[in-house]
Amino acid sequence: MELVTIVTVLALIQYTWFGIQVGQQRVKHDCQAPAMSGDPEFERMFRVHYNTMEQLVVFLPALWLYAQLVNPLWGAGLGVVFLVGRFVYRAAYLKDPASRSLGFMLTFLPSAVMLIWVLAISVLSLLK
Amino acid sequence: MELVTIVTVLALIQYTWFGIQVGQQRVKHDCQAPAMSGDPEFERMFRVHYNTMEQLVVFLPALWLYAQLVNPLWGAGLGVVFLVGRFVYRAAYLKDPASRSLGFMLTFLPSAVMLIWVLAISVLSLLK
Amino acid sequence: MELVTIVTVLALIQYTWFGIQVGQQRVKHDCQAPAMSGDPEFERMFRVHYNTMEQLVVFLPALWLYAQLVNPLWGAGLGVVFLVGRFVYRAAYLKDPASRSLGFMLTFLPSAVMLIWVLAISVLSLLK
Repeated sequence: MELVTIVTVLALIQYTWFGIQVGQQRVKHDCQAPAMSGDPEFERMFRVHYNTMEQLVVFLPALWLYAQLVNPLWGAGLGVVFLVGRFVYRAAYLKDPASRSLGFMLTFLPSAVMLIWVLAISVLSLLK
Repeated sequence: MELVTIVTVLALIQYTWFGIQVGQQRVKHDCQAPAMSGDPEFERMFRVHYNTMEQLVVFLPALWLYAQLVNPLWGAGLGVVFLVGRFVYRAAYLKDPASRSLGFMLTFLPSAVMLIWVLAISVLSLLK
Repeated sequence: MELVTIVTVLALIQYTWFGIQVGQQRVKHDCQAPAMSGDPEFERMFRVHYNTMEQLVVFLPALWLYAQLVNPLWGAGLGVVFLVGRFVYRAAYLKDPASRSLGFMLTFLPSAVMLIWVLAISVLSLLK
């Protein structure tokens, strides 16, 4: 499970780093807390951070269920796709939010695949 | 633990589906990212999605601690109440946000019951 | 793991309580759902709640990985710092958002320490 643990920690560090960048945008554009809107660059980074949170809430349980019930190595591999996908998402969103689809799919699909797989295995195991 | 796993996956799929509906509302009402406000129908779906995230952050740890320390079957049963409650919440919120209390309680209470139970058992086990 | 379980449940109860206070602020200042802005006192409590969610998403996985791979007692101790830090954060933020740094660091640092430690241990274990 070391690889799954490493992917988990890296995803949490990536997300934390996105959060720090939101704080930096607050300072840069004088968007003082508690504001959630203001300068467009701040708003984009804010949404990148929150969309990453939205997806982590699905990705982490999916990863660990998949690693335990299917295969930890494949789980870690899908996790690497997630990590790369989040960087793609961030870069595209900051340039133009309308171009965020590819990065979104690169992190949505690994979670979706793992969830469906875990669901199928659990239902089959119950029917046996 | 199959039933607990299935409830977990279904809750994550339900939440993901709510997120997809937020995206559909963005298109329908031309509320382009990174906007978090605009058309009332979009704002309602956005809040349904985020309130579900708020509650999942409590529900999933509560469910798994309860399943391991108390009873997985009861945990899965409370999880079904959560799933149904989120559909009730969504339907009520989209019609009139002021009517969201019942759906909210149907998902708040299962988590609250499991948390208190787990806390009581852990404190008692520590005092033994 | 009783202490880690207790800290986890207390952190989730604290977060739930912050969420209830957001609802109370909605009533007090007539900030009806789905609004996310309006009265400054409501906005501050809203952000305290959401910032706590942001941090729980990191803290809970960090705590459980650390408790299993390093030491549950130290994990519980760092969890107590997190709990106290969130109360400090809430009090400071409600008085003046610009004064939230200390409370933020008191909850950011425990998670950061645990994440880095878990990452180091996992990488070392993989290289052996």
